[in-house]
Amino acid sequence: LIKFSDRDVASQVARCILLVAFVGYYLMGAKIFQVLEIDKQEELKNSFLEARAALMKNYAHITPEELEIFLQTLTFSVKNGIIPLKNETLYLSWNFKNSFSFVASTLTTIGYGSIAPRTPMGQIFCVFYAFLGIPLTIIFLEFVSKAISRPLSGLGKYLQNVGMKERQIKIYVLLFFLVTGLLIFILLPPLIFMHTEGWTYKEGLYFAFISLSTIGFGDYVIGIYPSRKRSQIYPAIIILWYTFGLTWITLLFDLFSKILEKTKRKLTCNKLCQTER
Amino acid sequence: LIKFSDRDVASQVARCILLVAFVGYYLMGAKIFQVLEIDKQEELKNSFLEARAALMKNYAHITPEELEIFLQTLTFSVKNGIIPLKNETLYLSWNFKNSFSFVASTLTTIGYGSIAPRTPMGQIFCVFYAFLGIPLTIIFLEFVSKAISRPLSGLGKYLQNVGMKERQIKIYVLLFFLVTGLLIFILLPPLIFMHTEGWTYKEGLYFAFISLSTIGFGDYVIGIYPSRKRSQIYPAIIILWYTFGLTWITLLFDLFSKILEKTKRKLTCNKLCQTER
Ligand SMILES: [K+]
Ligand SMILES: [K+]
Repeated sequence: LIKFSDRDVASQVARCILLVAFVGYYLMGAKIFQVLEIDKQEELKNSFLEARAALMKNYAHITPEELEIFLQTLTFSVKNGIIPLKNETLYLSWNFKNSFSFVASTLTTIGYGSIAPRTPMGQIFCVFYAFLGIPLTIIFLEFVSKAISRPLSGLGKYLQNVGMKERQIKIYVLLFFLVTGLLIFILLPPLIFMHTEGWTYKEGLYFAFISLSTIGFGDYVIGIYPSRKRSQIYPAIIILWYTFGLTWITLLFDLFSKILEKTKRKLTCNKLCQTER
Repeated sequence: LIKFSDRDVASQVARCILLVAFVGYYLMGAKIFQVLEIDKQEELKNSFLEARAALMKNYAHITPEELEIFLQTLTFSVKNGIIPLKNETLYLSWNFKNSFSFVASTLTTIGYGSIAPRTPMGQIFCVFYAFLGIPLTIIFLEFVSKAISRPLSGLGKYLQNVGMKERQIKIYVLLFFLVTGLLIFILLPPLIFMHTEGWTYKEGLYFAFISLSTIGFGDYVIGIYPSRKRSQIYPAIIILWYTFGLTWITLLFDLFSKILEKTKRKLTCNKLCQTER
């Protein structure tokens, strides 16, 4: 009975550690982002206020009310996918290509939101459509994950034939999975994006991770600005990148959370199982 | 050998059906959204063009170039979380509250993107931070899912004592899980949002589903417009809603994709295993 109660305590302590670590991680992150970003945002705000003040000064007979109304119309437009460019007004219309991108971004739960339904009908349809479509996408990606794991188990068998120990094989296969995936899905694509989207390498890296992790802020989205020269196979490459990249990162996060969970268990057991002996 | 090959065919056919259904579902959705949304978007575009034309007409000495530059500054500002309102310029600054909301939206992979890091340092930190934080959040939500499943297994035991059959129990518990969750996490919260955010019921429903499914378009976000009266316990309620709602919907999607997978297997087996006999 005492042993059982000790274990109970161990599990309670583990839970508390997890909760504290979890809350701490969130609070720490919030603080760091604040420190990193606060000046830049202030700068952006000031440049907007300056631009507005300059306009008011040059055209003194614009009433503040008129300007306000214009600003609101424009804000609303920008939020709804209308982007004034230098020589033309870029317009994220619901053509089939954009609609397909929207659907793919929704069902993978990336949800960039560069266009999103505005009509009540469209919004309600979106709920029902995603309710069935997300599980369907999960099945599809599980199916792709089998295709990814096949060469990995092949590598494992090869290493076994060479005479490696089971534990070593596990670590090698894991490293191979991590390094190859990191190269193909995260580190190399930004080189393409620099060319096709005009982003810096760092921006491309940020986009790649934010997309494949299904966070999808929508601050960087592929193929919005039409001026760039893109190869005809670019859409196909992008679809392949999303399909395999999303699968790879899902596997990685699953693996990573299992390792974290195990470490947590080991740590609490080492400390509390020793007192048991 | 023939039986094995038959099974092989069955599995290949199942895969093809899945792939066709999957691609079809995406294409069909793209078409439907296009039909539903195209007029509204056209309307939005025209109202922007009209507002710009009116400004140009009233202030004839504004050169198109000056206006263009102003529009671009404003567009950039709006995309970076600066929202001109009637009497004030609303400004999503990186204060701790907003930074915490950003962190929570990132690590849950919702990623509304109403504010996102703009500095290269902030963006790179975001990648590393989320790389560890997402698995941590997965563990935390698994831990919450145990708390959710406890009353469910309690209900199962009660029904067993009453003398219900195993299969019936499964269906009842599942229905209870689905209906209770749907009520608490999807159907009732919009009634609160109508009050606190000023949305229609349908908009609230759309927001609730888009958030908990981790799509997170960012077209509707909680607590952005400060004018509304909100209770002091509102943030606590929202955090609880996200925590349990995210867990509930993850369990639901997992369950749903397992049911779809089973149905697929049964269908292909019924058709092809009959020919085997
Ligand atoms: K998302
Ligand atoms: K998102």
